Formats: sequence, structure tokens, C-alpha cells
Amino acid sequence: MQRKLTLSIDAMGGDAAPGITVDGTAEFLARRPEAVALLHGDEAVLTPLVAAKAGLAGRVTIVHAAEKITSDMKPSQALRRGKGSSMWNAVEAVKEGRADASVSAGNTGALMAISMLQLRKMDGVHRPAMTALWPTLRGRTVVLDVGANVEADAEQLVTFAIMGEAFARATLGVERPSVGLLNIGSEEMKGHEEVREAHELLRNSPLKMDYRGFVEGDDISAGAVDVVVTDGFTGNVALKTGEGVARMLASRMREAFTANLVSKLGAGLAMSGLKQLKDFMDPSNVNGGVLIGLGGVSVKSHGGADARGFATACLLAADLAQSDYRIEIAANLARVGTGGLAAE
Amino acid sequence: MQRKLTLSIDAMGGDAAPGITVDGTAEFLARRPEAVALLHGDEAVLTPLVAAKAGLAGRVTIVHAAEKITSDMKPSQALRRGKGSSMWNAVEAVKEGRADASVSAGNTGALMAISMLQLRKMDGVHRPAMTALWPTLRGRTVVLDVGANVEADAEQLVTFAIMGEAFARATLGVERPSVGLLNIGSEEMKGHEEVREAHELLRNSPLKMDYRGFVEGDDISAGAVDVVVTDGFTGNVALKTGEGVARMLASRMREAFTANLVSKLGAGLAMSGLKQLKDFMDPSNVNGGVLIGLGGVSVKSHGGADARGFATACLLAADLAQSDYRIEIAANLARVGTGGLAAE
Repeated sequence: MQRKLTLSIDAMGGDAAPGITVDGTAEFLARRPEAVALLHGDEAVLTPLVAAKAGLAGRVTIVHAAEKITSDMKPSQALRRGKGSSMWNAVEAVKEGRADASVSAGNTGALMAISMLQLRKMDGVHRPAMTALWPTLRGRTVVLDVGANVEADAEQLVTFAIMGEAFARATLGVERPSVGLLNIGSEEMKGHEEVREAHELLRNSPLKMDYRGFVEGDDISAGAVDVVVTDGFTGNVALKTGEGVARMLASRMREAFTANLVSKLGAGLAMSGLKQLKDFMDPSNVNGGVLIGLGGVSVKSHGGADARGFATACLLAADLAQSDYRIEIAANLARVGTGGLAAE
Repeated sequence: MQRKLTLSIDAMGGDAAPGITVDGTAEFLARRPEAVALLHGDEAVLTPLVAAKAGLAGRVTIVHAAEKITSDMKPSQALRRGKGSSMWNAVEAVKEGRADASVSAGNTGALMAISMLQLRKMDGVHRPAMTALWPTLRGRTVVLDVGANVEADAEQLVTFAIMGEAFARATLGVERPSVGLLNIGSEEMKGHEEVREAHELLRNSPLKMDYRGFVEGDDISAGAVDVVVTDGFTGNVALKTGEGVARMLASRMREAFTANLVSKLGAGLAMSGLKQLKDFMDPSNVNGGVLIGLGGVSVKSHGGADARGFATACLLAADLAQSDYRIEIAANLARVGTGGLAAE
């Protein structure tokens, strides 16, 4: 049995909140008997929803919040006017120790800003990074940074590697995750200065990391390593490009199966195999981005996630909260911090 | 009828050369009655291949080359020792005006180096860029740079936009191609300095370009614009990441269709639709990378392309050679060159 756990949930964030968030919380709680949840949001709306859902009695506490952060609010507005909103309160409960981790499907920029302000950066982390869990041929791969920063110098890339490794251990269940540095691959022209310097730092570091050197874009989906490290600009482009290709192919596949009656029949017969493929491509199976490097866990669910997707994000938050990833990061930062990196 | 055209072909480059290159040349010539070809390579090997192939008599001239560039040769070695090789001679024929464009499926780095050395950069182009034709939901999109350079400043990005627009007009048959600048998209944090500066330059330029502003990674496959401009590091990562996702999904799809007998039967029935999908994903339909910004046309075919793929690369070379793209690029560079860019 895992350590006891309280999850702090922004019940009002996301496209179909609060119906989806309440259902997703119920699905999460059913899978984690050791957990309870705080539901932040409009009490008048939430009370009947919670009452109508089996299995929530005694495991959910509604915490009233009159306001909510809208999807069009800019991060700066969210910081100025967000206090007392369901998102703000969800993160605040983590800050104040009333909960172990928070989850929100609301406005990404606002959540990053509010989390950064309240949870603060960990000691030694100058730039927190946004993580993504990427479905691959061999399972899942952690990619970071996918957009918290637009640039990263060599030392920041090393910090991302340290954070990504601890994150992978906590969430993928891999004891010693392999780590690669994203680069482009002609033999005599290996990437720009930052990436070459980070490579040298990681190769010669006192870390006990399974660092595998450079990987290329196609290695991500191949699952060549457990953690792919890159700057936020490149990582965000890679993530969105990959999503775009998957969406395009899914659309072409739908066309292929509805081209005529015979192909429709064929699609019907091939259904069991196609179901597997659909499950694999379903974003709700890998839902949850984390701004890693903060003093507490704040998980972002896709705004359009369904109840199962929201539950996946909650499970990710629980895995992180129940792991020692922050202790590991701190220890590794200390290893490379004084003398470790500078010694190169 | 198009202008008369001589294509200069490295018959010995690529995984299955020279069988594939001769067959591909034949397929190309069948589709372009105005064209003839020079085949560079081992005369003793090529003569019987050409004789055995219908339709090549009188339209192909074998130019003997005793050497060839191997796939493991570094660019610097290719420059030192490549003279007299089939790849070298293919490009040299363009330089000396004996041919209008060259095509090779050989070693990419070597071809870039040899093309750069012999064909030289166009006036006003400091950094040639590698183009890719990307299959999208609406057709094809030109993406550049996909790896000729590891970095690009704002003025280089503007040059890429100018080159990409002319390239798209020549190869996609679009009169006024739309152009977007690849960026990441949170509202208050729009990319790094180079991309923001290039955006201002393009927005306020005297070019008659249909510049649409920023696009994100998922806009590439959606076909949001005809030309996507980015630096070579980001472009190469995006291209390889996209290829990786497509390969992963194709592999999962094969699994889905061979899961059991019923799904195999279903796949058989859905074949006509699946054939379309396969054609769409077939790299031989979009084969051909061009190092654009040189004083002549040198097209790179995938090393593993089949005859049809090689013919596609030849068609691309012909389209470029028969277009005015270099005149257009020179005119646009002149527009932004003296005062145009500086005036911002």
C-alpha cells in the first residue's frame, strides 16, 4: 500500500468542468484506495454532482471557491486577479501542506504562473521545465522541456536531465532511466554550442546517470531512451509537430475506412486490432504535463481530456507525490553544483 | 511543352544503385519527353543496364566515372578525395553548363559539401538551406531549413522565407505561396529573439509575400501554410520527429491488422482505402531535398528510395531547373537587401 495521499483538485478548470473533473476524481479514487481529494470550486454546483456519484462519500471534501480562471486569461492577469479562484486555491493547498499534489485542466499559462508563484523554484533550479509523456514503440518516454522556457544554456540542459531522470523513475517505474540529449546528426556538425557543451558536462559528470549521448528526433517515438532532454523551443515544436502528424494520419485513416461500403465492412472486421491502435493513440492514456523543478507537485491535465484522461493526470500527480523525486533531484544538483559542473 | 532539359544523374549513389537510379531515370524520362539525361558512373556496369531498359536509347548518355562516394565518407573526405567520382561529376556538369540540374541518392553530407564547393552560393545568400516537402492534409508544404545550418539569425530566417517562397512556387504550382514562421505559442512568451525579430522584418518588408505570421508545430501537417520557415536545428528535429511518429503509427497499424484472422480479413476488405493511405504515406511521393541558395540545382534523393521515388526527385530537379526561382530569389533579396531590411 502506498503512502496516504491528499490530492487537491481544481474542479472548475477544463472544457467540460466540473462534470469531467468530478467523474475523473471518482475514477482516480477508485484506483487509489489510500487517497482522498479536495475539490475546489462552486459549492452549489459541486455538492449535487458529488452526491450523485457513487464512492465519493467520505473521500471528497468540497472547498468553496467563488471565482475561476477563464481560458482566455493571460498569466499576468491570473496572477493579479486569480486569488481565491479554484485554480489558485488548489495550488495553495499544496503550498500550505493541506494536500500532497494539485491537478488542474485549466488555462496552462495561468497554472504555470500561479504554480511558480506559490510553490517557488526548488533550490538550485533556475528554470523549471515542462515535461511531456510521449507514447513510443516501447512504452513511454519523458520529454522535457516542452515549452516552459524558450532557450536553455548547457547547465540548464544538465538540470533538465537530472529532473527528467528523477521524473521518469517516479512515473515510468524504471529503476535507472536512460537519458539522451536531442540533437541533429551529421557526423562533422553535431548541433550548436549549448548542446555540445551539455553533452560534455553529462558525459563527464559525477552523476550515476545512464546517459546515452545524442539522440535524434525519430528516436523519441522509437523509445530509444526513457528521457529526452532539449530546450523548451525545440521540445515544444517537436511535441506539436508529432501531435500534428498523428492527427493527420488519424484523419487519413478515417477516410481510408469510410471510402466505400467494402472498406467500412473491413474496418468493422478489423475492429479489435483497431481498438488497440485507438487506445494507443488516445491522449487520455498519457495525459498530464508537469512543471518540474518547483517546491511542490502541480499537474496540468489537457483541457479537453475526458474523465479517464483526467484520472490519468491524477494518477501521475499521485505517483510524483508518493515518490522521492525532489530529494533525488536535490541530491544530484548538489553533486554537479559545487565543483561538479565547474570542474569540467 | 516545357523548356528543353538535361538532367545530370549520379547513377552510383544510394542503397540500390545503379539498378534503381537507371530505372528511376527511365521513369522520369517517360514522363518528361523534353528531357535527356547524363548518367555518371561505371560504364561497364551501366551500359548493359541502359541497353536492357526500353525507352532509354538516344535519351541517355553514359559518362564514365571510375570512383564513387561511399556512404560512410565524411564531407571533408569527399571534398579531398571525391574528384572524379560519379557524384562529383554529376554536380560538375551543372557547374559547367552541360546540364540543368543534378540528382544524387548518395551520401547527404558529401553531396552538400560538393554542391556548395562547385555551385557556390548565390549572391546575397550567406547560408543555403535544406528544404523538405512535407505531406499535409491539404497537399504538401515546404519546410526549410531542415539541417544545412545549426542556427539562423533573423536576417537568415528572412532569406529562408524568400528562398522557400520561390521554391514553393516552382515545385507546388502555387502562384502566391503563403509563408509562416515556426514558433511556440503561449500568449505572453512568443519565441526567442531571432524569431521575433524575423517576424517584424517580414511583416514590414517591401516583399510582395503572403506572410501569415507565426505557425506552430501542428500547423505543418495541417497544411496551414505553403512554406514553413525555421532554423536548421529546429527544422531537422521537427522533420525527424514527424518521420518517427509516422513510422511508429505505421508499425502499430500493421500490428492492428495482423492481430487475428478476422482483422486480417478486414484489412483485406478495406484495401482500397488503405492503398490510398499507403500512397499518401509513401515517401517516394515526396522524395527530394534541395540545398537551396546555390548557383545551380542539386537535388538529394533518399538513399533508400525506389525507382518511383528516384523519379520523383528527378521531377523536382526538372521543375526547379525549368522555373525562374533563382531570378525571383535574387530580385527579392535585392528588395530587402539595400535599405529594405535595414530600414526597419
